[in-house]
Amino acid sequence: MARNIKKRSDDYAQWYLDVIKAARLADYAPVRGCMVIRPEGYAIWEAIQRNLDRRFKQTGHVNAYFPLLIPQSFLAKEAEHVEGFALECAVVTHSKLERGEEGLKPGGELDEPLIIRPTSETVIGHMFAQWVQSWRDLPLLINQWCNVMRWEMRTRLFLRTAEFLWQEGHTAHETEPEAQEETLRMLDVYADFAENVLAVPVIKGAKTEAEKFPGAVTTYCIEALMQDGKSLQMGTSHNLGQNFAKAFGIQFLGRENQQQHAHTTSWGVSTRLIGATIMAHSDDEGLVLPPRVAPVVAAIVPIFRNPDEESKVRGFVEKLAAALVGGGDANRIVRHGTESWLFDQATEQRIVADFRDARPGDKHFHWEQQGVPFRLEVGPRDVDANAFVLKGRIDGSKQTIPIGEVSRQWLSDRLNAAHEALFQRAQKFRQDNTREASSYDELKQIVKEQGGFVRCFFKPDRANEAKIKEQTKATVRVIPFDQPGSRGKDVFTGEETDTQVLFAQAY
Amino acid sequence: MARNIKKRSDDYAQWYLDVIKAARLADYAPVRGCMVIRPEGYAIWEAIQRNLDRRFKQTGHVNAYFPLLIPQSFLAKEAEHVEGFALECAVVTHSKLERGEEGLKPGGELDEPLIIRPTSETVIGHMFAQWVQSWRDLPLLINQWCNVMRWEMRTRLFLRTAEFLWQEGHTAHETEPEAQEETLRMLDVYADFAENVLAVPVIKGAKTEAEKFPGAVTTYCIEALMQDGKSLQMGTSHNLGQNFAKAFGIQFLGRENQQQHAHTTSWGVSTRLIGATIMAHSDDEGLVLPPRVAPVVAAIVPIFRNPDEESKVRGFVEKLAAALVGGGDANRIVRHGTESWLFDQATEQRIVADFRDARPGDKHFHWEQQGVPFRLEVGPRDVDANAFVLKGRIDGSKQTIPIGEVSRQWLSDRLNAAHEALFQRAQKFRQDNTREASSYDELKQIVKEQGGFVRCFFKPDRANEAKIKEQTKATVRVIPFDQPGSRGKDVFTGEETDTQVLFAQAY
Repeated sequence: MARNIKKRSDDYAQWYLDVIKAARLADYAPVRGCMVIRPEGYAIWEAIQRNLDRRFKQTGHVNAYFPLLIPQSFLAKEAEHVEGFALECAVVTHSKLERGEEGLKPGGELDEPLIIRPTSETVIGHMFAQWVQSWRDLPLLINQWCNVMRWEMRTRLFLRTAEFLWQEGHTAHETEPEAQEETLRMLDVYADFAENVLAVPVIKGAKTEAEKFPGAVTTYCIEALMQDGKSLQMGTSHNLGQNFAKAFGIQFLGRENQQQHAHTTSWGVSTRLIGATIMAHSDDEGLVLPPRVAPVVAAIVPIFRNPDEESKVRGFVEKLAAALVGGGDANRIVRHGTESWLFDQATEQRIVADFRDARPGDKHFHWEQQGVPFRLEVGPRDVDANAFVLKGRIDGSKQTIPIGEVSRQWLSDRLNAAHEALFQRAQKFRQDNTREASSYDELKQIVKEQGGFVRCFFKPDRANEAKIKEQTKATVRVIPFDQPGSRGKDVFTGEETDTQVLFAQAY
Repeated sequence: MARNIKKRSDDYAQWYLDVIKAARLADYAPVRGCMVIRPEGYAIWEAIQRNLDRRFKQTGHVNAYFPLLIPQSFLAKEAEHVEGFALECAVVTHSKLERGEEGLKPGGELDEPLIIRPTSETVIGHMFAQWVQSWRDLPLLINQWCNVMRWEMRTRLFLRTAEFLWQEGHTAHETEPEAQEETLRMLDVYADFAENVLAVPVIKGAKTEAEKFPGAVTTYCIEALMQDGKSLQMGTSHNLGQNFAKAFGIQFLGRENQQQHAHTTSWGVSTRLIGATIMAHSDDEGLVLPPRVAPVVAAIVPIFRNPDEESKVRGFVEKLAAALVGGGDANRIVRHGTESWLFDQATEQRIVADFRDARPGDKHFHWEQQGVPFRLEVGPRDVDANAFVLKGRIDGSKQTIPIGEVSRQWLSDRLNAAHEALFQRAQKFRQDNTREASSYDELKQIVKEQGGFVRCFFKPDRANEAKIKEQTKATVRVIPFDQPGSRGKDVFTGEETDTQVLFAQAY
């Protein structure tokens, strides 16, 4: 088998692209910086959506849909916001194509240019202003799943693309404390999801002024460490104060009969989570998927050399597949092209019996590169022994398992153990790559030679952060909620402060 | 209670908008012709998506995501396609906003204009060409849920908006018969969904050349009759032949070792289905929702005048709600603002106990206008009688039900019966409004005086269809699969033909 994936130690950036290509998760689109999310990649996004959407609904939110196009003038209504987004937006100026002498050209120029939403605070603020009249109309707790565009210069599949898919929650509240409570509630939802579904350990905390969302009062985030020692922001939750309420007139008659502005929040995660998941867990052999978002949880590979062996093995594989799903109406066999899947309707997770016309070695290689948590190999001698060989993707373990042990619960237990093992491994990696610095020289040296998170005392300050970024490429990723409760010397100025931060280079 | 909904007989178009406004399903957006789908409307779309997505997956399809923006040159590659879509597309020409003397203006002009997808055959054809090399790569069975834009001149919420949400299935096959089989399979999926989920009876058949999708060989459709006697196209499924395969180079090495073009199909339904559902079932009191897509299936309205009565009624309502959901882990109480919902995680349908601070009469009015299938009223005397009053939205029926009769199955049976009653009512309306015409005068008279479907012999012909449209505003909505098997005289030319069609004015 030709090696089609670079080693992480040789070229981490190329390794990442190779893993995606080998697993057929995504391709670049014909428009610069845009991507096509292929079925194997999109199924991961569907698993993320299904799980998060349930969490949003359990916390009392409802979904809605707001328009793709935003009048240019809306963007300018919040001063910080326009500075943050004007330089990278797609602008619609015409409403048709006409035939000119040299072929098609834009026609029907619009009175006012429209931009494709980079985020929807402005248009949602405009609508909220119409929906909110009285304190009785609050809180508004709304989420939207949609596409957005930010025309970034340097793009990388899933991590930073011109168009991406995301969800954006937008809420309006009667009081400041309620808005703050909501902002932190959704940060907790994200953190719990990252750790208990994606198996990625995260640090919760606040952004500095320099790194916050344009227009927010405070931005909170979850940050995770990737295998190359860089930090990746996996989700953000913003307390917007009354900034957007004032810009768009979200006012209501309060309990004391006074007109006042609402307090709003917004929070989002995107297809970037797929990139984070790939980077956090995969290895030199290819993709490793956390079991709770893996589209295929188990692939059964039959091994045979002639029709007699095939029929012997096939009967056993059918018995094995039936034992794995444990029967029940929820599970249906679906034919997809030449593949046959056992499809769990509730989770949409699949068990595949791979009877395609290919060599067993090619099939092993295929399922390994797809990141499938478990491969089950069945040959004629296994059938005689009433057993099969279980290969774990995460640790490469190989075990012979008697078929009598197998049940739906058995598979579920194995998948939970695999999740736990992945999480522990990622957590150990983060522990091993989080270092303390007590001086700026030490900070510089760690960033340059070792990477990872650098924990140190630092009083957030725009000018000092800019200098440090220029000299080290590292930025304050997060002011963790978890603070020492003691005081120490600011790593840059030497002044006493009680604030610790995490510095790192970032995606 | 002030009347906020026009009668259908007074102003059908205004009635439709009033129903949407009263039920808070959607608003117009600040950009002309675009809409905001409010939570109550979006929940209907989520129910539609959940149900259709399961059907797509059961027929072997997988979801993927293709880019929003399409290079202008792609549109021109298929000759009919560009004619069909160039005149109504949103064109992106710039990549940022700059500060000019008079404020913001577009900057960073693009080398080639990009259009926002009106449909994705072109960009998906481009990607399929890269993914298909051999007959072993076929069939490709892909669906996409996304937003699209067509800058129509006259818009109407849900039925025709500049931006709308939809799904577009795109498949590629080795042979013509396989593509044809797929095209008809998906038409059947749509028809079954329309009738068994939305309770809207549909006619299956083909479009004439004049009405087919730009670029298709044949377009099949499902057509439904609305209460004003106009026809509404609810879904289409296109056999694209090799047209797009040739335009975008979807070629493969066949079983006989020869290069050949694939045969492709595409099929779609959109948020227009919500408009169809509203128009098919609602009445002068407001929205009537078919039970299988109703976000709220039952609303319990407590009636009390003092705290003693409230606590007495509250205890009973809790017992009633518990009986309706039948216990089980799938059901969770969710607090949304001041409301409390019993939320079924599998179907996402809700049962609401409406303890908001409002008069019972306002609550009755509210749930009636929301189209909720059943309202359950509980007052102190009902508690004494161990019963409640059940009010059916569809037929206005009122019954006293002993609480002992209530179970999850009881509710499910009631909802199924309500679905059946809605479907029967819509089917009877269609029967009563489908007339035969044996001459052009008769056709003209029926269209003018009665509306509805006119069934007649007619040999499809572009020129004749254009004349009839000009004179009557009616078009051939569908050449039904269900044909008489006899011959008759063409209603326009008088020539013998064996083809019957349905004429109607259309949305």
